[in-house]
Amino acid sequence: MCCHICKLPGRVMGIRVLRFSLVVILVLLLVAGALTALLPSVKEDKMLMLRREIKSQGKSTMDSFTLIMQTYNRTDLLLKLLNHYQAVPNLHKVIVVWNNIGEKAPDELWNSLGPHPIPVIFKQQTANRMRNRLQVFPELETSAVLMVDDDTLISTPDLAFAFSVWQQFPDQIVGFVPRKHVSTSSGIYSYGGFEMQAPGSGNGDQYSMVLIGASFFNSKYLEFFQRQPAAVHALIDDTQNCDDIAMNFIIAKHIGKTSGIFVKPVNMDNLEKETNSGYSGMWHRAEHALQRSYCINKLVNIYGSMPLKYSNIMISQFGFPYANYKRKI
Amino acid sequence: MCCHICKLPGRVMGIRVLRFSLVVILVLLLVAGALTALLPSVKEDKMLMLRREIKSQGKSTMDSFTLIMQTYNRTDLLLKLLNHYQAVPNLHKVIVVWNNIGEKAPDELWNSLGPHPIPVIFKQQTANRMRNRLQVFPELETSAVLMVDDDTLISTPDLAFAFSVWQQFPDQIVGFVPRKHVSTSSGIYSYGGFEMQAPGSGNGDQYSMVLIGASFFNSKYLEFFQRQPAAVHALIDDTQNCDDIAMNFIIAKHIGKTSGIFVKPVNMDNLEKETNSGYSGMWHRAEHALQRSYCINKLVNIYGSMPLKYSNIMISQFGFPYANYKRKI
Repeated sequence: MCCHICKLPGRVMGIRVLRFSLVVILVLLLVAGALTALLPSVKEDKMLMLRREIKSQGKSTMDSFTLIMQTYNRTDLLLKLLNHYQAVPNLHKVIVVWNNIGEKAPDELWNSLGPHPIPVIFKQQTANRMRNRLQVFPELETSAVLMVDDDTLISTPDLAFAFSVWQQFPDQIVGFVPRKHVSTSSGIYSYGGFEMQAPGSGNGDQYSMVLIGASFFNSKYLEFFQRQPAAVHALIDDTQNCDDIAMNFIIAKHIGKTSGIFVKPVNMDNLEKETNSGYSGMWHRAEHALQRSYCINKLVNIYGSMPLKYSNIMISQFGFPYANYKRKI
Repeated sequence: MCCHICKLPGRVMGIRVLRFSLVVILVLLLVAGALTALLPSVKEDKMLMLRREIKSQGKSTMDSFTLIMQTYNRTDLLLKLLNHYQAVPNLHKVIVVWNNIGEKAPDELWNSLGPHPIPVIFKQQTANRMRNRLQVFPELETSAVLMVDDDTLISTPDLAFAFSVWQQFPDQIVGFVPRKHVSTSSGIYSYGGFEMQAPGSGNGDQYSMVLIGASFFNSKYLEFFQRQPAAVHALIDDTQNCDDIAMNFIIAKHIGKTSGIFVKPVNMDNLEKETNSGYSGMWHRAEHALQRSYCINKLVNIYGSMPLKYSNIMISQFGFPYANYKRKI
């Protein structure tokens, strides 16, 4: 067969055509060769880009967290706390929710005292709302939110450990302040802490909420919160309270188990007594505690059920403080 | 149409046939009625039986546990401990693994001092082997095993709480005694507790094993153990040691995460000093600790890798002892 074909050009077309054909074939081979040489490098660049993306995503999705701190006018406490929090390992960014609509946020002061370890973004709000801190901030890139009240100092070891616990239980609020709801024979619920009747018949106490003002939780829950019925948002706006109770309701309902895990803090302080601003936290209002019981009953009404579940699991860091697992005799 | 049919019998067949037809219809109706009366009750019986089955299964699968206690010859301790353990809530049954092949198990003494809250079965062994307690006992009906050394007294609140924790983490060993392996620059591992170098660079300590001699674990792991390579069983037989280290290897390998969860005991005692038998626990042997390091390296060799993973999670019961979540100032 080969001979037959070889003979054809020689016989039918002539040497000029034969030469032309050979040139064409050579050119084609060269082009093909050139293309093959190009192809792998394009792929490599793509692989490299993909790897970089995965790495940066890895750094900013599960391996680091965003601090969201809402503040009204205790700027002295805020800046003191930011000096501490800005240096916490695995912190990706800080979002300060500036609720003082009459006053400018201290961007300039902050910048003048730079450079800073991580970006801090001051978000000037248009209305002074408690639930401002639960917006879906476009600047937020991490899977985890660290939400801290503007008068709460949590030590770095506590934060590092609680974050590692959150990474193992990313669908729950992992935090330092446990609270509970109490059922009464009338069916009306009440809100409180350890001073209240322990539920159940066993030993010890239980908690059914972990307050978000000193906690890690999954940033997707901010979207969940935004999607809640208007009645929930209205309740929070009316009381300027209970956003954390609502979050616990939402999460418990979503995961079908206890909304949070309590991590016992080793070194956590409330600095509110140290402020010179003349203002004190919202919880000093006379109606604050009663409001929270009120909120629980309203939320049960809105959702049609009580989704909160009790837990008695308290997590501590093994061996920190030193030998903390040994029995005190 | 109805008239047409009605007229037919009257016209064509005659009153006798008509009467007969009516009787037949009545009889059929009665039979149907009788069947209908029977049917629901048969269903109800089945439902009742099913509910009973579910209940008894529920009681014996996840809701209760089986105590497996292996003993050689500290019968005074054994009986003292059984007096305590037999009354623990949610205990389904006790299996005493009687390793004293020369002596009869104290069945008669036990029975003479009845009645007892739950069944206690003395399993006379044919050879004095440490791994006898890891057999797949046919008498075992529960998903959970409570394994306790014959000199270990664990209080009821501790057991009740640890069992509730196991129910939330049924694939891990939930127990009261944490240990760890330590890597050295030579690549040789060593076994130990808190006295050893904490792994990693963070705060506190870590553990990578929870000893089975004071723990809850899933009874399916007994089958897993039986299926291990002969070399593993031989290692345990040669050392009369390390069955617990092997179990941690098996479980860590199987679940791909830390094999156990440490629950800090509130009231757990070792009674070995109280025995009059003249015998002391195996851990008093001179070579005991070295054996355990030896076992770790042998097991890594057998399995081809180090599957143990570190954890620093320590669980306590919220509010027990009272106000244990408050900061000590």
